[in-house]
Amino acid sequence: MFEFTLTARAGRARAGVFHTPHGDLATPVFAPVGTQATVKTLTPAQLTELGASLVLANTYHLYLRPGDELVHDLGGLHEFMQWPGPTLTDSGGFQVFSLAQTRKIDDDGVTFKSHIDGSTHRFTPEKSIQIQENLGADIIMAFDECSDPNDHAYSKIAMERTHRWAERSLAAHTRSDQALFGIVQGGVSPDLRTASAKFISSLPFPGIAIGGLSVGETKAEMHAALDLVTPLLPEDKPRYLMGVGTPEDLIEGVRRGIDIFDCVLPTRLARHNAAFAPEGRLNLMNAAFARDQRPIDETCDCYTCKTFTRAYLRHLIVAKELLAGTLLSIHNLRALIRLMETMRAAIQDGSFESRVPKWLKQWQGNAERLKDG
Amino acid sequence: MFEFTLTARAGRARAGVFHTPHGDLATPVFAPVGTQATVKTLTPAQLTELGASLVLANTYHLYLRPGDELVHDLGGLHEFMQWPGPTLTDSGGFQVFSLAQTRKIDDDGVTFKSHIDGSTHRFTPEKSIQIQENLGADIIMAFDECSDPNDHAYSKIAMERTHRWAERSLAAHTRSDQALFGIVQGGVSPDLRTASAKFISSLPFPGIAIGGLSVGETKAEMHAALDLVTPLLPEDKPRYLMGVGTPEDLIEGVRRGIDIFDCVLPTRLARHNAAFAPEGRLNLMNAAFARDQRPIDETCDCYTCKTFTRAYLRHLIVAKELLAGTLLSIHNLRALIRLMETMRAAIQDGSFESRVPKWLKQWQGNAERLKDG
Repeated sequence: MFEFTLTARAGRARAGVFHTPHGDLATPVFAPVGTQATVKTLTPAQLTELGASLVLANTYHLYLRPGDELVHDLGGLHEFMQWPGPTLTDSGGFQVFSLAQTRKIDDDGVTFKSHIDGSTHRFTPEKSIQIQENLGADIIMAFDECSDPNDHAYSKIAMERTHRWAERSLAAHTRSDQALFGIVQGGVSPDLRTASAKFISSLPFPGIAIGGLSVGETKAEMHAALDLVTPLLPEDKPRYLMGVGTPEDLIEGVRRGIDIFDCVLPTRLARHNAAFAPEGRLNLMNAAFARDQRPIDETCDCYTCKTFTRAYLRHLIVAKELLAGTLLSIHNLRALIRLMETMRAAIQDGSFESRVPKWLKQWQGNAERLKDG
Repeated sequence: MFEFTLTARAGRARAGVFHTPHGDLATPVFAPVGTQATVKTLTPAQLTELGASLVLANTYHLYLRPGDELVHDLGGLHEFMQWPGPTLTDSGGFQVFSLAQTRKIDDDGVTFKSHIDGSTHRFTPEKSIQIQENLGADIIMAFDECSDPNDHAYSKIAMERTHRWAERSLAAHTRSDQALFGIVQGGVSPDLRTASAKFISSLPFPGIAIGGLSVGETKAEMHAALDLVTPLLPEDKPRYLMGVGTPEDLIEGVRRGIDIFDCVLPTRLARHNAAFAPEGRLNLMNAAFARDQRPIDETCDCYTCKTFTRAYLRHLIVAKELLAGTLLSIHNLRALIRLMETMRAAIQDGSFESRVPKWLKQWQGNAERLKDG
């Protein structure tokens, strides 16, 4: 059911097709983030139109609200949010560590307080899998612990816990219509990343995720971690770089053999009036755009760029109109999805490696990460 | 260019076609309100899909932000907001009287302070027409003064000023690709409404608007005013009841011979989590909808009703997701536009008068006006 077919290679970069119960994913692929079972400000119809194929939702958020059992009773995540294509849920681990209050980690799991109402909850590997089975995404994640990448001692403890939790997640998983991915951790320590890549690869996961990156380490450290990890992963399983990234990160990830990415960056930037553009990231609130009759990007094929001027988008932003967030989300998501389509085609036609420097240069002005992303 | 063709009648109700430079309007018609050159939360593509034909924008708002000269320089309202169909702008008068601060009215015009930054501005009939020519809508309005309907003495002064301003608006208007409508005022006083209907009808306006209703009078008073006014208006010109209304108001207006309506109600309700439904207006935040797998209205053909459950909409509202406003706006606008389409077809096929009681009963639970609308 979850066959992964590699169709072309370019160095370590790969193009493939990952077959899921809700359709085939052409990889490499970028997944928009629908934290609360909605990609913020966009309808599923708009997502389809801009070329989205895989949509991510967050286990932590949906467990708290509206509740995974409710989503299950209403037919599962696809039916609930009416996204017809493949979906992915994370394990809830990252949000527990980054959003929840007064968390307490032990070897069995994590006790935490809801960021919504302060109520107390507990996630274990078994609980995370149970929630994700209730939600019913096509691709789900083993429960993991994300550490401060620069703290080697803690990274080792978190990695070892992640490994034990990976085995427990596998043992707890019952749904054959879901692909459970294991997660490689280990911060930025070469020894830990190596050990984690080998251990997770040894387990019968149909896909491998790389967690704990884009969380405070430098770009060079991220690239080094990928250089180390991806050669150790099985060739025949899809690889998912969690929570990444910027256009530059996508290019650097694909060339190092990553197949799946997700990030809140494009939609979060949109809600902060920022757009990916050829001349670099634009803040469209700027008065310089008041009379700018160009689209955000003349080469872009999205609804926003085919329809509206920068001047109109600036007006919507200044007038505090919500449509601005919708239109910028459409463009920013399309920009990244189009970049993935371009890279995939280049892997197929043999031009990938020669075009990487041009893409990196082209996206230079859009490379910056979000401080809170 | 602005020919109005009546195609059928049912008592005083009329079905027709109003020809404009941006396409033919099938009347009776309900116009969504795009205050700041955007129907809040919706793209033009979504408006087209839900059957919108005429879109209104507000002169007062666009004059202040981004400025009518800027809109003009960017190609006019249609080009700016990318609405391909007919547009309508009001005169700015109503907003000056309801939104602006410390206004001072004299016989020549109104001086007021912007609700945005407190800056001082002045509207005269000539200025209002100049702004509306810069904006470039297909249908524009003479500058008028809206009075407290229950204050007869002031209503008389405001009406007389409105009449003089109507003549000045006509004299100031130069664009032949715009239809300038005169506005009947007179509060709820039969003598004033009669005088105003006769006077405005005597001027060479291609269409007549009825202003100063749905601003504090009772529904019975509004109906009485319409009963008095519409028989005095020329049969061959379209009639526009400004700022109205609820589904009940639309039915009562059409049966009294109104052709054009606009109101913020459907989109404003949507942003307050309320939806037109068969059982009456729903507040979808209510916990009763947490597991409700029905659409808002099983008979509705809108994207929201064809796609999403009440349970999902409630989740979006509780989770404070902006998509809720978009999806409820789509439904609420489609509900009113579908009601207009149903009434128009019934006028054409001879069933209108017999079906009015059923429609009024059907929409009873949705009849309430918004307190701030």
